[in-house]
Formats: sequence, structure tokens, C-alpha cells
Amino acid sequence: MAKYTIGVDFGTESGRAVLVDVGSGREITSAVYVYVHGVIDERLPDSGKRLDPDWALQDPEDYIRTFQHTIPAVLEQSGIDAGDVIGVGIDFTACTMLPVKRDGTPLCVLPQYRDDPHAWVKLWKHHAAQPEADQINQTAREMGEPWLARYGGKISSEWFFSKVLQIIHVSPDIYKAADRMIEAADWVVWQLTGVETRNSCTAGYKAIWSKKDGFPSREYFQALHPMMADVISEKMSTDIRPAGQKAGVLTPQAAEWTGLKPGTAVAIANVDAHVAVPAATVTEPGRMVMIMGTSTCHMVLGESEHVVPGICGYVEDGIIPGFFGYEAGQSCVGDHFAWFVENCVPADVKRIAEERHVSVHAVLEEKAAALKVGESGLLALDWWNGNRSVLVDVDLTGMILGMTLATKPEEIYRALIEATAFGTRIIVEAFQENGVPIHELVACGGLPEKNHLLMQIYADVMGMPFKVSASDQTPALGSAMFGAVAAGRALGGYDSIFDAARSMATLKDEYFQPNMANKAVYDRIFNEYKLLHEYFGRGENDVMKRLKKLKAEVIKRS
Amino acid sequence: MAKYTIGVDFGTESGRAVLVDVGSGREITSAVYVYVHGVIDERLPDSGKRLDPDWALQDPEDYIRTFQHTIPAVLEQSGIDAGDVIGVGIDFTACTMLPVKRDGTPLCVLPQYRDDPHAWVKLWKHHAAQPEADQINQTAREMGEPWLARYGGKISSEWFFSKVLQIIHVSPDIYKAADRMIEAADWVVWQLTGVETRNSCTAGYKAIWSKKDGFPSREYFQALHPMMADVISEKMSTDIRPAGQKAGVLTPQAAEWTGLKPGTAVAIANVDAHVAVPAATVTEPGRMVMIMGTSTCHMVLGESEHVVPGICGYVEDGIIPGFFGYEAGQSCVGDHFAWFVENCVPADVKRIAEERHVSVHAVLEEKAAALKVGESGLLALDWWNGNRSVLVDVDLTGMILGMTLATKPEEIYRALIEATAFGTRIIVEAFQENGVPIHELVACGGLPEKNHLLMQIYADVMGMPFKVSASDQTPALGSAMFGAVAAGRALGGYDSIFDAARSMATLKDEYFQPNMANKAVYDRIFNEYKLLHEYFGRGENDVMKRLKKLKAEVIKRS
Repeated sequence: MAKYTIGVDFGTESGRAVLVDVGSGREITSAVYVYVHGVIDERLPDSGKRLDPDWALQDPEDYIRTFQHTIPAVLEQSGIDAGDVIGVGIDFTACTMLPVKRDGTPLCVLPQYRDDPHAWVKLWKHHAAQPEADQINQTAREMGEPWLARYGGKISSEWFFSKVLQIIHVSPDIYKAADRMIEAADWVVWQLTGVETRNSCTAGYKAIWSKKDGFPSREYFQALHPMMADVISEKMSTDIRPAGQKAGVLTPQAAEWTGLKPGTAVAIANVDAHVAVPAATVTEPGRMVMIMGTSTCHMVLGESEHVVPGICGYVEDGIIPGFFGYEAGQSCVGDHFAWFVENCVPADVKRIAEERHVSVHAVLEEKAAALKVGESGLLALDWWNGNRSVLVDVDLTGMILGMTLATKPEEIYRALIEATAFGTRIIVEAFQENGVPIHELVACGGLPEKNHLLMQIYADVMGMPFKVSASDQTPALGSAMFGAVAAGRALGGYDSIFDAARSMATLKDEYFQPNMANKAVYDRIFNEYKLLHEYFGRGENDVMKRLKKLKAEVIKRS
Repeated sequence: MAKYTIGVDFGTESGRAVLVDVGSGREITSAVYVYVHGVIDERLPDSGKRLDPDWALQDPEDYIRTFQHTIPAVLEQSGIDAGDVIGVGIDFTACTMLPVKRDGTPLCVLPQYRDDPHAWVKLWKHHAAQPEADQINQTAREMGEPWLARYGGKISSEWFFSKVLQIIHVSPDIYKAADRMIEAADWVVWQLTGVETRNSCTAGYKAIWSKKDGFPSREYFQALHPMMADVISEKMSTDIRPAGQKAGVLTPQAAEWTGLKPGTAVAIANVDAHVAVPAATVTEPGRMVMIMGTSTCHMVLGESEHVVPGICGYVEDGIIPGFFGYEAGQSCVGDHFAWFVENCVPADVKRIAEERHVSVHAVLEEKAAALKVGESGLLALDWWNGNRSVLVDVDLTGMILGMTLATKPEEIYRALIEATAFGTRIIVEAFQENGVPIHELVACGGLPEKNHLLMQIYADVMGMPFKVSASDQTPALGSAMFGAVAAGRALGGYDSIFDAARSMATLKDEYFQPNMANKAVYDRIFNEYKLLHEYFGRGENDVMKRLKKLKAEVIKRS
């Protein structure tokens, strides 16, 4: 009798459940729930209270509604008996966090706190805590905190303690009223199981925790703010558990929401990007997974601990138990090409696309694919949205050079793709040079399907095979796989994520082999990229920052 | 009784005659003749012989036809009596040159030479003599030729002796058969007057002549090629005469062609850009004339001789008698914006332009004008077509930086305009720092009429008033003015170009005053421009050249 597992992937605008065959990994069916309140970035629900720019909140009740809508839907669509579903796993955006009471009640559902924006879920892209991030970094540097090196030397405004410190600064009463500060990932698992658990992925990548050293010290938090001194003992948990473990089982109430059986196994929570790694077949060092969409997230496993300057961070057990999970990122990939198509593509290319009923991207890709490597004479720095790794600098901006009066739009389009490939190569080389080997790339996410030229360019620039995950919903598949592991082999699942990956994760047959003649030419262009990367990115000429500062001055003055 | 004068401006595709009132400078009427053979760059007329790339020839009979069509036309259109036309002046593109027999007959009209491309007129933009230019420069450097400094250290492939040396190399029989090598400017004056004269403008700017030192030595020419040793004594003339002199009077045959009276005064020939200077009211140092079109030509007068590194050249009596005429250039101005509009402007901007029945430029200009200085955060290097002054390097290419995902097309458009303004400021500062003062700009050419934003940006970047010539056909007006000077005051004209300019040349009332607050911001951006100008332009990072070399390799290989 076939067994099934469900993965629920909580995204930025919606949540998605996928029902998966445990034996084969086949995705039977899926259902999506679009959050009623989506991203709350203008006005609070009910009170209509205005939010400042850079704010991004969510409503935790949207997450419960996601369970209530999507799981019954996949059961109904598939006709599968709830008794054959052995496990549930979830993954979430991160750091997406909220203040809750001791029983898990979010402060924002309580009438007395509902009008305070700090009572709500702070979404990953809530960027209003930059001053707090600056303080966190400054204080850590002054106190010589050893953990700073694990995160490439800088903590982001998106991360957990930046958001917590903002609550303390602006709305201390909310901080006092909260018994727990918790990742939404862990909070939804709590809602399913009735048990508070904390996962090592968000703790490690977003909340400065490590298996070896735990959280930063009381002294450090006290230096940030006296109220924050006991944040760990008072508002957090130090019982951090790796992915692959079972968090608990479905409560009767959660069973009622979902239509599943009470007692069904629920996995420890995970992050959307990280959970995709085993779903892309990777459970060992050497193969880097790239989740490619508007931006790209790079993940690779390592046997041992290495400080890699400028990466997002590394966490023991952060991705796959038993390994150090290394993460890096490029903040502008799909967004880059979308910007180009929206702002720089002439009417005649658009007309061709319309006549042929294809996208503008498709027309540009076809024209760009006809170009030889090096033929355009163009070179770009892919910093339209700053640089996340390895320079870790949001104030860098885009650059392109080599234009002549004969330069064509498809040449620029190709140069932008190449720039993102060079950016990836900088990251790959940073890993390699610091003891984290990489010999193959595996892609998942929206871009690889859409743009074969891009995939070939990456393979050629890197000189490595570039493979593609068979699933186009790898996070949900990964969550379902961890659900099967939570259930365990005795119940028809697996005893480890390694076993689950062998049976459930697959790659597409077709993949991209590097053309080594192209690589030889790209090596020369990449040398030029590196030269400019260092010149503009490491302080030799801070023109980009000075122009950005001038821009801010000019706008402020008016 | 009113007197009249006619200026004939020989352009690249056509010739234009303008009939002007001597007293007021009022342009009564004009007529254009489009050359039958235009630019000959694919096949020779008659024989159909194929030309190599980079070739550009013309048919001298098109010049005679220009006289035959345009002068009768302006007489007829105006109803003016030919007896009231006191003088004729001409200006020409340069260096545009041809081999002729002793009586002025072009070799290409003689059947025995007609199938040899070297017998035809080599147009200014004939670029096939680059190896010869390289040899000329190399030999000059080796022999320590003092004149090289006058031309910013480099002779162009477009210039006179590059073209002559190509004839010697490839078609020595044509060189032997030619009794004279002559600028087309001087040749058409010869056809009108029956007298061979040579003008100091083309001799100085294009043929390495100076009033003080004459031409390069016999030893130098011999070093280039034994056949060339006596080029000056055998094929040229050392009787070089400044603009403002009378070359002669109309022959009966020329009178028959034109409908003018035999004996009408004809001025010494001139170059289109240079002749525009007095027509733009400038006959004294300090005010730089900019002829702005697809590219920009900068001219300024100096009291004394100064070596200005990287400019095109300076010639005593080259523009206005009694002054050193300094010339510089930017190779990509109008072309720059045209490239952008053709290749980078999205469909919705084009749609707005169509709906409002205005040009895409007009829509972009309006949007760009709404931006504050520094607001875009963008900075470009205007080298899409190389750099003519002061780097003198055709292998430099364009660059732009500062892009974010919020960057809009009009911001890029404005940054391109600003880049050309910064390029002009580099030239202005090179003059100023080397003893050639400049305190005001005067524009003529096609661009100033079309783009007021551009004019204001130039005024702001330079911190100088930017005025505009009242005439939109300044070269023809300037030629007409020199025609009136050739006739002299006794016949109703003027005794000097200074007197003629006072009466005949005017500026528009409206002009562009610098906004000094904007200048203060532009000073900061210009500092950034200079930094990148030096970094990419002076060898610190030759990435542009290396990419261009790679591009040539890649294209060659395929």
C-alpha cells in the first residue's frame, strides 16, 4: 500500500501544499492558498494604521488558513485516504518572526495589541531595522565577538535580533508583553503539534546560534540594550533541533483543520531555500545548489568548519545533519533581466515577441544565443541591487562597459546574464579557496526552466556541469521528504534524509555540460570582471557609494 | 542699392548655396543639391568595381553640378540681379582630397584612370589609410619631428598625407600620373577662378603645414617612402593663403555654370567647421565655438602659440587671420543619443511619443528635465565612438555605472547627455590649463535647436553662458561672409572678416545661463568622471582595449 507525505511551503504571497508519494517522490497534486493580507506594507488591517516605508508585515492567521485550505484540497484532489499520509513537513521564508504569548497566541490577535505594528509578524523583507543591524554589527566589532566571522563579518537588518531590537527600541511594551520571540517556521509547527520547538536552520542562519557555541553572551545582549540582556533565557529556547527530527504529531485541532489523522508525524521546521537542497538530490559536499529566481541563493555542504569571508553564513546541521551548511547569495538575478526587459528593450523587439506569441525574454535569448563568447565586447558588474556575497555591500550599484555605436540590446542582455554568472564564480571561488570544495552545480527555482542560454553560460563560465532539479517545487518536495523522515521507516517513511533523497529526489536527464573552449574565453573576461569587482567593490574607487550618497542628499533637499 | 554674397557649403551627401544680404547678414534663400553619387563606399561608378570596407570616395563632377544647380536656383528664387552679387565663398568637408592633372582635371574623369579607385576623391571619412597613419606617426616619433606636438601627438588616418601615402603604396601609377594632390576645397575654387590656390585651414589642420615652419622636411617624406621625398615641391604648393583673402574672380565658364557675372570675387577656400566660427560671431579669443551634430567640433582662438596635449591641432591663421586657431573634438554626441533611442528605449516611451506626435527625444527630454542634478546616481563615460580629445584613442568604449533596479530610461538618457558635457569640460580645462582661455560657449549645428535640456546641462556643467548662433546654416553663412570680404569694401563688401562678422553674424537673443547651484553638484560628479576618465583612459586599467581585442579575435576566428 503506497504511503504519502505532505510538504507545505510558506512563501511571501501564498502558501503551497504538495502531496508526494513516499516511495518514488512523485508529486501527486498541489494546492495554493493566497494570503488574505499578503504583504502588509502600507496599512495595518482593521485599524488602517499607516506603516513607514521599508516595513513588511504579515498576518499569522493567514498561515493557519493555508493549512485549512491547502491540505484538505490535496486530499480531495488526489482521493487519497488521510490514513495513508504518514508525515507533514513545512518550510518558511526567513527570518520571518513574531512575538507570542506562552501558549503561542500571537500578540497581534489580542485586541489590546492589534493596533501596534510591532505585535505583527515581521516578514523577511521588513527592512526598517537597519539602524539596529548597524548597532549589532558595531557592538560586535567593538566587543570582538567571535561569531561575526561565521556570517562573513556582517549581520543583516533582515535577521532575528535586528528585528527584536527594533521592537525594544520602538515598542518596549510589546517586547515586555511577549513571552516568546519566535520564527514563523517554528510557530506553525507549534500550531500543528501543540509543542514549541526550534529548528537549527533559522537559529543558525538568522539568529546567531551555533551548535558549538550557542547564542551570543548575556554581556553582548546587555551591551545592545539593558532590556535585551536576558532575551535568550526569557524569550527564546536553547533546545535547538536539526532538520530530520520529528517535532511532534498533529493535535486533534490541527487534524480538524487539515483533514489528516491526529498523531500524524510533523517534522522540525525548515527554511524554503535550505529545504530545497536534498530535494535537488544533494546530501553530500561538492555539489552546490542554486535556488534561482529574482535572486539566487547558493548552498553547499562541507565536512568541516571554514571561515569564508563575505558569505551569508555557515551552520552546523543547518541544512543536512552531520554537515556544515554554507550559504551565499546574489541579490539581483531574475530581477536584473526583468529590469532590462522593462526599461531597456526597444519597441521592435517587443513587436517581434508579440508577432511570434513568445516572451521578450525568448526573443532576446534567441538573439543572444547566436553571439559568440566575447563577441559583444561588453562587461557588466551585476550590482543593480547591491552585492550580497562576497562584498556584502548594499550600496554598490550596477556597471556596464564596452558599448559602441554598434552595440545591440541582445548583447547587453547577454552581458547581464554573464555578469550574474561571473558573480556566482566569485562565490564558488571564495568557497573553494577557503576549503569548501565545489565541482558541480545543481539548479532549482524558476529561472533554469525559462532560460537555457543562462544555464549554458553558467556551465561555461564555471567550467562545471550544471544540472537541474526534476521538481519545479523543490521547497515543498523537500518539506514532504522531511515529513517522511519524521514518520520514520517503521511507519513507511525513511530513517534519514539521505535515504529519503535517494528514493524521492531526482534530477532532469538533460543537463548543461561546460564547453571548455568557451570557458577559455570566459576565463579572460572573468579576469577583467575580477579586476573591476575589486576596484569598485573594495574601496579603491568608491564612486558608486559617493553617487548614492549624493543622490540621497539631492532627494532629501527637495 | 543692397548687395549680396553667396556661400556654398559642400557637405558629405549634398551641397548647399545660401544667398545672403551683405549689409545685414540676412539669409535670403538657399538651395540644396544632392550629389548623384553621394558617398561611394561599395562600388565605383561605371566599372562597378568593389571597394574594401572603410573606403569612402566621391565624384568631383558632383561638386561642379552643385554650382550649376544651387547658384542659379538661389538667384531665381530671390529674383535678385546677378550684378548685385559681389562675392562667392565656399567651405568643404576636410580632409577630402583628389589627384589632378596640371590643368586641374581630376584623374578619375580620364578614361585610362577611371577604374582605379585611387583616382577618385578620397572623402574625409575614408578610413582605409590607417596603416599609413600609423607609419606617419611612428616615423615622426622616431625622427623626433617637432610638428607632432601641434597635433596632440597623433596624425589621423583621415588626414592628407595618410591618404597620399596610401595612393603611393597601392597605386603608385596614379601618384606618378598626378601633377597635383589637392584638397577638394581648393579644387572647387580653382574651378571657379581658373587659378590654383591653397588655403591655410586645410593645409594647417590636415596637411601638417604651419605658417612658421611650412611642411615637414624632404628627409621626413623620404623616410616615409622614396617616391614621396619631393611630394611638396612636385605635387603641392607652398603658396598657402589665409582665409579672408581673394582667390580670384569667376571665369566666363564658371559664370555660365552659375548665372553670376564673370569677374565676381571668389574667396580662398575654407573648412565647414572652421568657417562657422565667425558666422557664430566669434573673431576673438575666449569664446569657444561648438559645432554640435552627430559629433562635436570645438574651436577657439588664441593670441599666442600653446601646445595643448590631446587636441586635434592648432594652426596660425587657421580660422581667423592674426590668431592661432585651436581645434578639438568629441566623436560621439548626437550619435550617442540616437544610439540610445534606437537600441534602449522601451515601447511605452515610443507609444507616448506617437500619441503626442512628438519625437522620442522630446519625451525623454521632458522626463529627464524633471530630474534634479545628481538624482539618478548615474555616471557615464561618453566613449561609444572612442575618444577624439584629449585621450585621442579610438579603442576606448562606453561605460555607465550607478544603475539600480529603480533606474529609468530617462535617467540613462540624461546621464548620456551629462557625459558629453563632462567630455567637453575636460577639453575646456585642457585649453585653460595650457594657456588658451575660455569664458563662454557658442553653439551652432543641429543639436542646440533640438535639445534645450542639453544646452542647459552644458551651461551648468561648465559654469559658463552657452549662447547659440542665430543662423542654422552657419557654414554657408560663414562662406558668404568670406565672399563679401573677398569682394572688399570698395565693391560693397568688407575689408576684413572682423567687419563682416560685426554686421552679418548674430546670436539668438535667448541663451543659457549657468545655474551655479547645479554647477556645485556637477563639480562633484565631474570629479568622479575625471577619476574614471583617467583610470580607464590612461592605461591604469586597459579593460576596454583588451575586450575590444578579444572581440576582434573572436570575430576573426569564426
